[in-house]
Amino acid sequence: MNVVRVGFIELWVRDLERSLAFYQGLLGFRLERREGGVAYLRGYEELEWSLKLKEAPFPAVRALGFKVASEEDLSALKAFAEERGLPHALESDWGRPRILRLQDPFGYPLAFYFQAEKLPRVLQRYHEHRGPGILRIDHLNVFSPEVAEAVRFYREALAFRLTEYTEDEEGRLWAAWLHRKGNVHDLAFTNGEGPRLHHFAYWLPDALSILRAADILAGAMETDRIERGPGRHGISNAMFLYLKDPDGHRIELYTSDYLTVDPDHPPLRWSLNDPRRQTLWGHRTPKSWFLEGSPFLDLEDRPLPTRASSLEGMPQHVI
Amino acid sequence: MNVVRVGFIELWVRDLERSLAFYQGLLGFRLERREGGVAYLRGYEELEWSLKLKEAPFPAVRALGFKVASEEDLSALKAFAEERGLPHALESDWGRPRILRLQDPFGYPLAFYFQAEKLPRVLQRYHEHRGPGILRIDHLNVFSPEVAEAVRFYREALAFRLTEYTEDEEGRLWAAWLHRKGNVHDLAFTNGEGPRLHHFAYWLPDALSILRAADILAGAMETDRIERGPGRHGISNAMFLYLKDPDGHRIELYTSDYLTVDPDHPPLRWSLNDPRRQTLWGHRTPKSWFLEGSPFLDLEDRPLPTRASSLEGMPQHVI
Amino acid sequence: MNVVRVGFIELWVRDLERSLAFYQGLLGFRLERREGGVAYLRGYEELEWSLKLKEAPFPAVRALGFKVASEEDLSALKAFAEERGLPHALESDWGRPRILRLQDPFGYPLAFYFQAEKLPRVLQRYHEHRGPGILRIDHLNVFSPEVAEAVRFYREALAFRLTEYTEDEEGRLWAAWLHRKGNVHDLAFTNGEGPRLHHFAYWLPDALSILRAADILAGAMETDRIERGPGRHGISNAMFLYLKDPDGHRIELYTSDYLTVDPDHPPLRWSLNDPRRQTLWGHRTPKSWFLEGSPFLDLEDRPLPTRASSLEGMPQHVI
Amino acid sequence: MNVVRVGFIELWVRDLERSLAFYQGLLGFRLERREGGVAYLRGYEELEWSLKLKEAPFPAVRALGFKVASEEDLSALKAFAEERGLPHALESDWGRPRILRLQDPFGYPLAFYFQAEKLPRVLQRYHEHRGPGILRIDHLNVFSPEVAEAVRFYREALAFRLTEYTEDEEGRLWAAWLHRKGNVHDLAFTNGEGPRLHHFAYWLPDALSILRAADILAGAMETDRIERGPGRHGISNAMFLYLKDPDGHRIELYTSDYLTVDPDHPPLRWSLNDPRRQTLWGHRTPKSWFLEGSPFLDLEDRPLPTRASSLEGMPQHVI
Repeated sequence: MNVVRVGFIELWVRDLERSLAFYQGLLGFRLERREGGVAYLRGYEELEWSLKLKEAPFPAVRALGFKVASEEDLSALKAFAEERGLPHALESDWGRPRILRLQDPFGYPLAFYFQAEKLPRVLQRYHEHRGPGILRIDHLNVFSPEVAEAVRFYREALAFRLTEYTEDEEGRLWAAWLHRKGNVHDLAFTNGEGPRLHHFAYWLPDALSILRAADILAGAMETDRIERGPGRHGISNAMFLYLKDPDGHRIELYTSDYLTVDPDHPPLRWSLNDPRRQTLWGHRTPKSWFLEGSPFLDLEDRPLPTRASSLEGMPQHVI
Repeated sequence: MNVVRVGFIELWVRDLERSLAFYQGLLGFRLERREGGVAYLRGYEELEWSLKLKEAPFPAVRALGFKVASEEDLSALKAFAEERGLPHALESDWGRPRILRLQDPFGYPLAFYFQAEKLPRVLQRYHEHRGPGILRIDHLNVFSPEVAEAVRFYREALAFRLTEYTEDEEGRLWAAWLHRKGNVHDLAFTNGEGPRLHHFAYWLPDALSILRAADILAGAMETDRIERGPGRHGISNAMFLYLKDPDGHRIELYTSDYLTVDPDHPPLRWSLNDPRRQTLWGHRTPKSWFLEGSPFLDLEDRPLPTRASSLEGMPQHVI
Repeated sequence: MNVVRVGFIELWVRDLERSLAFYQGLLGFRLERREGGVAYLRGYEELEWSLKLKEAPFPAVRALGFKVASEEDLSALKAFAEERGLPHALESDWGRPRILRLQDPFGYPLAFYFQAEKLPRVLQRYHEHRGPGILRIDHLNVFSPEVAEAVRFYREALAFRLTEYTEDEEGRLWAAWLHRKGNVHDLAFTNGEGPRLHHFAYWLPDALSILRAADILAGAMETDRIERGPGRHGISNAMFLYLKDPDGHRIELYTSDYLTVDPDHPPLRWSLNDPRRQTLWGHRTPKSWFLEGSPFLDLEDRPLPTRASSLEGMPQHVI
Repeated sequence: MNVVRVGFIELWVRDLERSLAFYQGLLGFRLERREGGVAYLRGYEELEWSLKLKEAPFPAVRALGFKVASEEDLSALKAFAEERGLPHALESDWGRPRILRLQDPFGYPLAFYFQAEKLPRVLQRYHEHRGPGILRIDHLNVFSPEVAEAVRFYREALAFRLTEYTEDEEGRLWAAWLHRKGNVHDLAFTNGEGPRLHHFAYWLPDALSILRAADILAGAMETDRIERGPGRHGISNAMFLYLKDPDGHRIELYTSDYLTVDPDHPPLRWSLNDPRRQTLWGHRTPKSWFLEGSPFLDLEDRPLPTRASSLEGMPQHVI
């Protein structure tokens, strides 16, 4: 069950036109296909679509997509789901004949796929690039009321590898960053009411691109979409900018973390109240960042109930 | 009385060693001379020193230095001071035989000079550059309880030119940016208890250098020195980072504003409560930024009394 | 006769559509007006148009435009032309009621103006910016068979100020950089067959924008337009990229030189064969760069004859 | 036999002091240990040393180091060497108890290791970073007179994966890029007299860092060390700068290629004479780049003989 990397996210949005004005018009995502109320987009480096938007009555996250290494891995995942009694279903989508939807033991609506039709390479068609230069999907971050259990499951059952984590003084796990593809994360867990999506993130070429994204939003009089940043994370060392899309889904623009492919790469521990943890420069994090998230759908496209976390409160370094 | 540009600032600091650890050690200013409790520093583009630090019992600002176009301009300024009854005195300093100190009608301790010994050119000695790459002094910003009057004086008597200004709904002037050298400002006035220094600013090569300054401070565990930013100003369009030095003097790292040499360049009006005014990206400004400043000395090196402003309150967009 | 800065250039191009595909489509210049075979463009920082393209039977440069400080300066220039017997004529153009065309003693077709209708400010409309981010016209560079004489005239008659110059071992002047606006140049003279235009230059925000311009041209399969660079000049310390437009007119994208407003700013001497002079990194310059230029028109729009230079040869550091 | 990534290179240099002036003094490599004529260095992101310099009578490359996933992989490699009759030997080095030296069938002196003492994390100690900001070793590139055979071996025996390759019109392979860690390459083969090292490469944070490296060398009057670039590769899309160290070893500073972890990632074919292949911007490549390389040592530290390639000539796009 070899998971290669995060592959896509599927969002429900209330007004597709408005969402495209944001993702395509301002952020410069490349729209590859639109039919009816559905749109498929990608970054300039990607050969597969990675963002699916579907017009729907309310905002939600329908699938957290992961690319696996082969069709055999898909079959192994199906067997695993059956063995564990996890809800699952096969479906197909544009250019992807076989997608295994699977709800993990905590409720997260995963979607695994291997086969994907390749789109034409546009990385070096620089004259067509627009916006700050979105390159590729980098990671997903989810709220969890049971971070420690979720991390254990993803490490043991799906062989995700831990790179960084946040603990409080009593050794309780508040957040963890797990990867498969060799950088800081494909998937992160953040303590809080869940399961909910905290954010999804795209890779940009460099720090200046991150600043340009903020400039573009300001130019369009859309500063309300900027929730946090630009800044440099202590965790991951990446440059970041967090935006809220027109439905409140949070997207992070992200760049310049580090290589983690070594099997003996030592996980990095952060103390919950370290002021450099969230933003290396000591910036405080807005409370909304710890509280707001997007609801998930279950495999029958119904809103997934959430549970509160027993770890209450939030880090000291907030505003 | 042709003022060419802002030329230097002279600061009193309580512990020169500690100040040099900040300015030279972290920010990479080039130390050109140190003797006793006095140090002279410059940026990598400058041919004249621009920052003088003097160890003293309390933090203060002794002089706001401006370069004039000739010795004749100095003499004209002296005549002007005599005519207006403004306190003034001649002194000399390292490499500068004739400096005219002059207290303007509001109390600001100005210092004018023309002749200055040129230091060797180090702009292209890139292997010797350290820190984020401080290039040159760019401007001074002072608190004033009477912004409108001060602006009128500097425009009329000293031919400063207005580039941007902030007004409230009732047409009262809260801040103004004035230049001589052809970019947004050499001198700005900010409403508040004064006369006090709000900040002095140095030009950096580009936005990435500004980010690097923040990284360097974070690396050195000095995030407490970061008061505001990095960000992009609405006013001036410049990228900025505000730091507090070990004595609480505020220094701005600044880059990428615009050319203002046209005599018919139209001043830009900002509304006091425009959320994009302070930071184009909509960031709120910390209250300290509107409240804290450095005291000035009078021409006999005694602390200059301050007065409150009749324009009370602060912009809405603060934290 | 107070010249403020370089203001515009007027080019004859053979195919306006093709030229707009280059300037507007690839470089992102903002097209402000197009009527018949004429187009007016500007950079994102400018409040006045700075590039005029006119469809014509052959490529040429009709005017080197300079902004002066007032209508009185225009009148003084007119009187100067009459006194010296220099060909001159008044004309008007879009938003510019009074332009004084004037052929200097060497034949260069200058055009002076003060009054110019201001265009809306778009500097912070970042969501509308395209291409690498052209900001403003920075300078003009012309071939001259008599650099020393031309430099003397511009310094003495028009008060241009020298910032850098190139000499050979025998003290002969091969090139010189002269400014009015306070950076390295508004106008430069390069030894060679002339009068011809060597290039005109626009300011970009930073070095990364220069690289992005090269990427955009490569993306569009237009690498043949890249003549030289990206690189950093020894002279001026600026980052640069030289392009040839579809008619062979050379445009430089330029950023990050230095401030030169001090009246006692010392000119910098370069030795003709210093390998760091043209490109600080030691790159050789293509021969075309020393040989190719655009013809000028005289005041009756006829091609201006050229003369060879008595300084023959070219620097050693070419390919 | 799971190779994780390129891990280190071991160079023989004639004057260690002079080499450290280059690698540590100008490029800012972090010197971790020096004893006698041996020095160990790393980039700021690395937790293991990656560059070993040893003073020796002549310049050579002693080892191309690769990290494997476990001690078991080392044992499997040893068994493989025995089975194939490949010269091999175990040795230890600073903090690395078990290194398997192994000469592949073509003569390349490989060195595999798993266990490595971790050095303290300095990535976020930004105040200590010097030079352009070397982060981590990225890849090795070797000359081979039999590129097709070498590529087949590395793909089949060691499971390297092909990302890009250069073919001529007759379908002959001139160069290939192979990876294990998930970006464009850990190891590349270039047609030419071999086995020799073409270059080794380090990752930098962004394109501006690459430019800064060129500035630093120019500042130090070491432009002769710059062989090619800065530029953007067509192949790999990376920004690059090629330098020659004081012994003629070629080091590339490299950044911003792309993610290649998908098992179905399609290799990209380049035509040998495509002008955008070597440098996307169309720059010609100096002949030295196709001709000069560093000799290898065999397992007994004797110079390895080289063979000419039957593919003669070089791409058209050279100078």
